[in-house]
Amino acid sequence: MALIVQKFGGTSVGSVERIQNVANRVIAEIQQGNQVVVVVSAMGKTTDELVSLAKQISVSPSKREMDMLMATGEQMTISLLCMALKEKGYEAVSLTGWQAGIQTEAIHGNARIEHIQTERVQGLLNEGRIVVVAGFQGITADKEITTLGRGGSDTTAVALAAALQADKCDIYTDVTGVFTTDPRYVKTARKLQSISYDEMLELANLGAGVLHPRAVELAKNYHVSLEVRSSMELERGTIVEEEASMEQNLIVRGIAFEDNVSRVTVVGMEDQLHTLPTIFTTLAKHQINVDIIIQSIISSGEPSISFSVKTDDLQKTVDVLSQYADTLGYERIEHESGLAKVSIVGSGMVSNPGVAADMFEVLAGEKVEVKMVSTSEIKISTVVNQAEMVRAVEVLHQAFQLDAEMAGAK
Amino acid sequence: MALIVQKFGGTSVGSVERIQNVANRVIAEIQQGNQVVVVVSAMGKTTDELVSLAKQISVSPSKREMDMLMATGEQMTISLLCMALKEKGYEAVSLTGWQAGIQTEAIHGNARIEHIQTERVQGLLNEGRIVVVAGFQGITADKEITTLGRGGSDTTAVALAAALQADKCDIYTDVTGVFTTDPRYVKTARKLQSISYDEMLELANLGAGVLHPRAVELAKNYHVSLEVRSSMELERGTIVEEEASMEQNLIVRGIAFEDNVSRVTVVGMEDQLHTLPTIFTTLAKHQINVDIIIQSIISSGEPSISFSVKTDDLQKTVDVLSQYADTLGYERIEHESGLAKVSIVGSGMVSNPGVAADMFEVLAGEKVEVKMVSTSEIKISTVVNQAEMVRAVEVLHQAFQLDAEMAGAK
Repeated sequence: MALIVQKFGGTSVGSVERIQNVANRVIAEIQQGNQVVVVVSAMGKTTDELVSLAKQISVSPSKREMDMLMATGEQMTISLLCMALKEKGYEAVSLTGWQAGIQTEAIHGNARIEHIQTERVQGLLNEGRIVVVAGFQGITADKEITTLGRGGSDTTAVALAAALQADKCDIYTDVTGVFTTDPRYVKTARKLQSISYDEMLELANLGAGVLHPRAVELAKNYHVSLEVRSSMELERGTIVEEEASMEQNLIVRGIAFEDNVSRVTVVGMEDQLHTLPTIFTTLAKHQINVDIIIQSIISSGEPSISFSVKTDDLQKTVDVLSQYADTLGYERIEHESGLAKVSIVGSGMVSNPGVAADMFEVLAGEKVEVKMVSTSEIKISTVVNQAEMVRAVEVLHQAFQLDAEMAGAK
Repeated sequence: MALIVQKFGGTSVGSVERIQNVANRVIAEIQQGNQVVVVVSAMGKTTDELVSLAKQISVSPSKREMDMLMATGEQMTISLLCMALKEKGYEAVSLTGWQAGIQTEAIHGNARIEHIQTERVQGLLNEGRIVVVAGFQGITADKEITTLGRGGSDTTAVALAAALQADKCDIYTDVTGVFTTDPRYVKTARKLQSISYDEMLELANLGAGVLHPRAVELAKNYHVSLEVRSSMELERGTIVEEEASMEQNLIVRGIAFEDNVSRVTVVGMEDQLHTLPTIFTTLAKHQINVDIIIQSIISSGEPSISFSVKTDDLQKTVDVLSQYADTLGYERIEHESGLAKVSIVGSGMVSNPGVAADMFEVLAGEKVEVKMVSTSEIKISTVVNQAEMVRAVEVLHQAFQLDAEMAGAK
């Protein structure tokens, strides 16, 4: 008898019919002779409705009260799912975050889980019950309701799997697994049978969207075996595990991309040593997320630094930098929008020094201009013109043989 | 500085605008220099929506899971009201039933409050905060979420007022107070300045609807001073207190009535001694509420017993009695629908033996046939033809001078 944690997101529980479907997925696991803990999100549209109510009352509602409000979303889902399971003849018990012992730090809206008191969940499992836990929420030492912020329900599921020493954590979502690249853009994209935590982390951070990086990191730290799979279809998904052994020979495992990227260059800094940290501290204070940062100190020419931001943040970035122009001390700002980021990810890169060169060569062969580059041990990111993004992904997908049979399997 | 508990029902918090209005009512009390604890119900339509969701999944959903589901309703309201108060510059903290220390017995759907741990509420009041508590809900010793059933939020408010030794408990509703009779039917109905707990209990039990009898009983036991008043209008409401001293000279304080009443008579019982209790035990087992019961043992004639039920329950009552005909042992059942109950209430009756006679005489003078009678120390109920109900109420209202100036005041 194995212990399985199943997580179903907002789309998977978005209607009464879908909750019935989820109940069937839970029962299928029970019929295999397993113990099951289910973690659910709020029903698809509930979250939006709650946010809309709050926004009608306050432009920037208190975070504590937002947590109080948002936590009702998952509480609704857990009760409805338990009703559906009972209606089908299975003993299920719903638990809110605090009832499930999910203790968090005292930060509203974005709390991290500190500890899980598993006694109650474990006790119910021992009695043969299905335990349905509200994702995304917890309780502080002072008995305040908190929410976990983005990726919260994924994180709840992985944390519960770790605390309960579950055999497996299945993340049910609206896609059938992790793909070599986004199948909506690249027809030859293939589902991966498996992927390593580190690769998944890079892909998650790069916006592949199927799994929140926070949850992947937690899974990696506690060696929780994950499977990303579809709540609608029965096929196997993608296993996220320590070593994606089945596909070791693949140098590149996936290609991530995102559009609406802008480049900002600050030129002619007077005191590079102090200006550099000040720029990024100032931007951070104004909640501007900087992605790629590139600096090369050249003996000749003006000292400059380039970085990328989301195009949505471009105007704000320029405004903030202008506002602090005196303190920062620079000559001018240049910026360019209409860009996109294309990244290749794969743990095989570490031992293959020529991968970056291959990537640039492939892009050059297609006359795709590379405007910025950033690398990590298992990732190479390039910034290109947005108009060339999909073409760049397609040629890289082909060049690194991600469309070949070995990359994935039905 | 007084401590006031304010309770606002589902209609009073039924929209964002109304929640803003409630916030203003709370602030008005704060501006008087008072401490305020607010108890709120779920927003008007929320409860129906939640019940509808549950019913789509299960014909008879688990009571535990219904409590889990329904408890989200008030949790939404408390957070929204606190946002509104903060937006207006007032420090407010929302608390769910369990956070407010409302401990109940372990009965789902209809739990009674056992104890309130007031430390947290009291601590927040001491810090100068407005405390907003979710009505209708509590927690068992095993940390299970419960709901209090009908009149739950009124009961939460009164129980909190008792536990906190509040100076006053204001029940805000959609009417301006307790009336001598229903002003929708009788134009001369007047709002009462005050009414005693016992009178209010009889009126509440008779379906006057402004205040749940459970809450009145609790207020009586703990000497909580209540005021029933409108959340929309500023005028004073009706005080419910130990002795309604201002109006002691009034024999009759109010007239309650309800339609859709049916009379059932069981005729020719073989063994009256055993049949009598069995009839009512059997009906109770089938969830049929019997109201007035009349029996007179006459030496001549067939032994019989009459009782009234809601017309909605008439068919079921006849079916149940027929089903158990052999066990019960009777000759036949007679029944009559299209009836109504008209009751006069007033603690002055105790010392005025002629009130019943006066009532019958008034009704006889209008040719209203009295089909059943039931009396208590402070109440006389009659069953009449439904078609004559409003006329009966009108003539009684006038005969007992309830339309006179002294009965109420603006």
